[in-house]
Amino acid sequence: MKSVLNFLIIFLIIMSINFAEEGMYPLSEIDKLDLDQLGFEIAGWELYNPDGISLIDGICKVGGCSGSFVSSQGLILTNHHCAYEAIRDASTPLNDFLENGFHAATRDQEVRAEGYQVRITVDYYDVSESVISVITAGMDPADRTEAIKNQIKSIELQAEEDHPGLRAEVAEMFIGRTYVMFFYKYLKDVRLVYAPPRSIGNFGGEVDNWMWPRHTGDFSLMRVYVAPDGRSADYSEDNIPYIPERVIEIDPNGVDENDFVFILGYPGRTYRNRTSHHLAFEYDLRLPITADLYQWQISVLKGFGINDRDISLKLASRIKSLSNRMKNYRGKLQGIRRIGLVEQRLRKEQELQEYIGSNPDRKERYGNILEAIGTVYSEKRERYDYEFVLSNFKASSVLFKTAYTVYEMAHELPKADLERKKVYMNRNLDKTIENLFERLKNYHGPADEALFQDMLERYNDLPIEFRIPVLDSRLGKNITVRKINRFVAKALRKSRLGDPENVRQLLSLNSAELESLKDPILQLAIDLYPEYENQRRTSEARSGEIDRLHNLLMEIKIDFLDTDFIPDANSTLRLTYGHIRGYSPVDATYYSPISTLTGAIEKIGPPPFDLPEKIVDLHRRGEFGRYCHPKLNSVPVGLLYNMDTTGGNSGSAVMNSQGKLVGINFDRAYEATINDYAWNEAYSRSIAVDIRYVLWIMKYFSNANELIDEMGL
Amino acid sequence: MKSVLNFLIIFLIIMSINFAEEGMYPLSEIDKLDLDQLGFEIAGWELYNPDGISLIDGICKVGGCSGSFVSSQGLILTNHHCAYEAIRDASTPLNDFLENGFHAATRDQEVRAEGYQVRITVDYYDVSESVISVITAGMDPADRTEAIKNQIKSIELQAEEDHPGLRAEVAEMFIGRTYVMFFYKYLKDVRLVYAPPRSIGNFGGEVDNWMWPRHTGDFSLMRVYVAPDGRSADYSEDNIPYIPERVIEIDPNGVDENDFVFILGYPGRTYRNRTSHHLAFEYDLRLPITADLYQWQISVLKGFGINDRDISLKLASRIKSLSNRMKNYRGKLQGIRRIGLVEQRLRKEQELQEYIGSNPDRKERYGNILEAIGTVYSEKRERYDYEFVLSNFKASSVLFKTAYTVYEMAHELPKADLERKKVYMNRNLDKTIENLFERLKNYHGPADEALFQDMLERYNDLPIEFRIPVLDSRLGKNITVRKINRFVAKALRKSRLGDPENVRQLLSLNSAELESLKDPILQLAIDLYPEYENQRRTSEARSGEIDRLHNLLMEIKIDFLDTDFIPDANSTLRLTYGHIRGYSPVDATYYSPISTLTGAIEKIGPPPFDLPEKIVDLHRRGEFGRYCHPKLNSVPVGLLYNMDTTGGNSGSAVMNSQGKLVGINFDRAYEATINDYAWNEAYSRSIAVDIRYVLWIMKYFSNANELIDEMGL
Repeated sequence: MKSVLNFLIIFLIIMSINFAEEGMYPLSEIDKLDLDQLGFEIAGWELYNPDGISLIDGICKVGGCSGSFVSSQGLILTNHHCAYEAIRDASTPLNDFLENGFHAATRDQEVRAEGYQVRITVDYYDVSESVISVITAGMDPADRTEAIKNQIKSIELQAEEDHPGLRAEVAEMFIGRTYVMFFYKYLKDVRLVYAPPRSIGNFGGEVDNWMWPRHTGDFSLMRVYVAPDGRSADYSEDNIPYIPERVIEIDPNGVDENDFVFILGYPGRTYRNRTSHHLAFEYDLRLPITADLYQWQISVLKGFGINDRDISLKLASRIKSLSNRMKNYRGKLQGIRRIGLVEQRLRKEQELQEYIGSNPDRKERYGNILEAIGTVYSEKRERYDYEFVLSNFKASSVLFKTAYTVYEMAHELPKADLERKKVYMNRNLDKTIENLFERLKNYHGPADEALFQDMLERYNDLPIEFRIPVLDSRLGKNITVRKINRFVAKALRKSRLGDPENVRQLLSLNSAELESLKDPILQLAIDLYPEYENQRRTSEARSGEIDRLHNLLMEIKIDFLDTDFIPDANSTLRLTYGHIRGYSPVDATYYSPISTLTGAIEKIGPPPFDLPEKIVDLHRRGEFGRYCHPKLNSVPVGLLYNMDTTGGNSGSAVMNSQGKLVGINFDRAYEATINDYAWNEAYSRSIAVDIRYVLWIMKYFSNANELIDEMGL
Repeated sequence: MKSVLNFLIIFLIIMSINFAEEGMYPLSEIDKLDLDQLGFEIAGWELYNPDGISLIDGICKVGGCSGSFVSSQGLILTNHHCAYEAIRDASTPLNDFLENGFHAATRDQEVRAEGYQVRITVDYYDVSESVISVITAGMDPADRTEAIKNQIKSIELQAEEDHPGLRAEVAEMFIGRTYVMFFYKYLKDVRLVYAPPRSIGNFGGEVDNWMWPRHTGDFSLMRVYVAPDGRSADYSEDNIPYIPERVIEIDPNGVDENDFVFILGYPGRTYRNRTSHHLAFEYDLRLPITADLYQWQISVLKGFGINDRDISLKLASRIKSLSNRMKNYRGKLQGIRRIGLVEQRLRKEQELQEYIGSNPDRKERYGNILEAIGTVYSEKRERYDYEFVLSNFKASSVLFKTAYTVYEMAHELPKADLERKKVYMNRNLDKTIENLFERLKNYHGPADEALFQDMLERYNDLPIEFRIPVLDSRLGKNITVRKINRFVAKALRKSRLGDPENVRQLLSLNSAELESLKDPILQLAIDLYPEYENQRRTSEARSGEIDRLHNLLMEIKIDFLDTDFIPDANSTLRLTYGHIRGYSPVDATYYSPISTLTGAIEKIGPPPFDLPEKIVDLHRRGEFGRYCHPKLNSVPVGLLYNMDTTGGNSGSAVMNSQGKLVGINFDRAYEATINDYAWNEAYSRSIAVDIRYVLWIMKYFSNANELIDEMGL
């Protein structure tokens, strides 16, 4: 590992301004921080060591989450909700591990977690120059986007050829400006080792989701295997546990209020760099309209599962995901409104504009940027209803999404590898196909029908300029809800795309062969293919223009030293630090930062607030063992801290000043859902399950002593 | 004012045990308290002075609430919700004072508050000996109840003859044991002076009701008038403002966290003295079944008002009252469950039982008390569904209740005054009739139909032993829901009891004449009269038995020094004191005790969380004047304190250590809804509107400067 990245120069300027505990620092920043003064009791090289082993080597990405290696035998500690699909896939109505928990007392009882991969960061370097080299002055925005995309594909492919066995991925650090190539090791044989029952692992369910005080035992254990020669391999009985380069040590004594903590993890996406136009677009359109759609979809999906555990298991993951996003969006809406974030950002932009206007050269170069960005968002607003419908045809109907993927793939595969859309390149094709079949697992005809029909009704309400003639002609003259009903019912029932075997056969056909088939959903996808391609080009032109403008905006913001300016999260490895700390969510209310088992017991009620009788008994008898918090006189369950996290940080080890694991990050407080747009010491709080609760559950509830031994405790 | 009451002896024993800040002290107790040490900065005689003027003389009861005289011109400060019916009666869809607020800038703009009375406590003395003298050994329980009732009626009547112009009322202090006669002055000409708009006075509505943090400006001003000669008189233009003997001074500087405060008010009813059998009956049956009924009734009533402001105004008060009780019951259920109150009390009773059993004499006298009380409650449980239906025929249908009252009155009036049921005695008759017509004001045919029909359906589900033959025969053979529908619809539509003029005529008829009428609802009431009379006797027998047993239970509890034992509230004047203090409602959460205008602004959203634009403007401009809390940098809105209050304490002045008014009590925190059964320092918190908010609203929002002047500020 090497290289000082050119975006650090920008970063260093920002660093000189005090951000309290905001910041998702890229690896390269670690040696710029005064770790000692911040509260670390370990040196920078223990965190991250380009020439040797460090904590970073004990961290991985598993599924969409972060995870930590907690034994030399590939044992990974992550969240219950991160292993959710694996637990569900292993479950049957007769053997319901989701409901009752799972515990592989021996290795051969571990269950394969299909669709799961473990990713370990191996190296990275700056490639901004190479990426940007393809941009020419006055380039058309869509061409610009296309050129950057192609260049990235090309250098990734080259890098993988140069480093066999590793995966290369370019991440955009600052929009249209800086790019970093990351090398990853991917391990593909992941197995489920331990999960508490739903009542513990998802205590409080959607009611408590995004909420503090929290009492969720959101943890699970997985194990990753490799071929006997140590190389990444598909699942095989001959595989052996992966030996991580570094094991994250656990501190069973946990932490206390005001203690220093930090996280090394993979935060997904933030948008703090965006303009007020972006925020207003989110606030006015995307968030409320999407949240309302999700709320309706959730109620429909829940209805199907009420009396059928099979269907409810099938739809559970989708409902969970929709609920999670819906509440997140509602939290964002509340937060943006409450702190007046749009107006706040607008004011800062006005200041910037004044600064720009105060000098003729600046005015010449930057005077129109904000207005031009506004124009792009105006266009986006005008097209929003149409784009919403188009994207949600895919998101709402598993069958339609399947059909579209099959047809698009048939279009792409004949092309040269580098010419293809990224997901269809050889290096990504397996994963794309795997995702397709993963989605099909959750297919439930009546649900698809209800959701797709709703989306077509919304289409039918679009103004005339957004009508799609080929779709109108499918639906017949004078389209009514009744006609849509009949069309969808007939199409979905006639289609054979719900059958994985049939889909597998379709994958071998070319586009002309697919066009000759009579499957009505496939036909619909084929009809709409040109529409989606048009939309893709519109969207690329828009983001090309945004990239160009943001690049200029950044130049002048650096000049102006705007404090709003930090590198947005982009799923690459980041450090964040802070303290175990409470906050005041609303007037006259203070949340303290450690919740307890006693609090969980007080919450007991109908699901999702049920707990196993054994937990209640253990609590009544005060059997807390060494995991009792002396002042709270109970087992600590949840931890709250002011670190800067976002989606993707789920499963991250929360470490103490010595780099020992004291909790597993799994959520944010409701007010912190707006972290994605802005961080604030007053309300940005994230939530972990306390390691003492994890260990207490494993020891006293599950008698999983062999796993505790394996973790070296 | 004189006399040391005999129940004080009991009381003194209890006082020796430390109750923290629990306690609703009767007037007679005040000179037993070490006021100085408790935090009072005024002497006992300033609180209560039998030989002169004290704060007590500045306190009154108005409607069902408490109030304070805040000017020498009869101006009363109480809650918005206490004046609710007066504001509503004054409102029309065109002139909606409920929605927009009311402000009489001059006396002649004040609006008569029909149905309102003001009660002032004048004197009291112990009458236990006289009441108990009518009980003979081995008396039948029903006879016992009857005898006590009659004796109370008789001594009240005698006392009023001895003290013309005053009202005499005997209050039971300890069940079946101690009785006190109170003398009251009643003033009948009450007028509405000031009320803020609904959005301020009921900010947060049913959502925030029984909740902290609270931001409700729950205050209003009324004025009471008397005849020019100073005597109580009905409304007349010639009346003049009443000159109270004492005015409660306002401290516009308010209070701060941990400050000492006290209340002199009229707490309604508590049941802390009751057994685990009572609690279990409440928890298992009465609270959940009634809460569910109310919830259903609320949704039905709300439905009628959705598109009709007239109907919605008509039903508003009933919905408000049902919602308030429902949420209170739900809070009690949660509280009883959460702290295991039934089990807690059961354990104490087991200890008492052991104590009783440890001595043969005690065992002989008290050994069976608890079991006998249990037997009474078992019978009550068995009859619950039946009694629930019977009492809710009246509570659900305004017409049926009217019919029943008319017929019962015709039965009672021919009797000698002392022989009548208390409400029909000459001294109470006017109020009973007034209540009847007040109820009729809220009559809405379709609502009555829906609620009464539901109750008949519930009747129809009763087991065979509880069928009422006369009712069955009205409903016809093989009673179905459809038949009930038709019966109710026909009966209610045919009845003329919804017409006040018709009802007024019926009041002059005797029972035989009423029986000859063809009004179907009246006929139903007549049919059911014997059933209700039977039920009354059953109920009296039960309470006679409970009285006898509780009297014995108290003897042995005094002996055993059970700390659960304090005099229950009974709508008589009481003192309670404590501190402005926060609490922890649930794990990891702390509520601080002063909420602010800024918190109200943060809560703004759709009704009931709307606020006038002017308030938002004033807040934005920081126009807080002298009412700004220096540390909170906003106008304080709500106060939280650990005093011991219950329903009836609404409108009470919260006074500081110097006896100056700093807030108006209006609610309890959710966890404190179980105050009625048990008080606890950890969760018993009551809520006031801060006087600074009251004055700020009046001055800055309403420009009601003449009223502020009148209050001497």
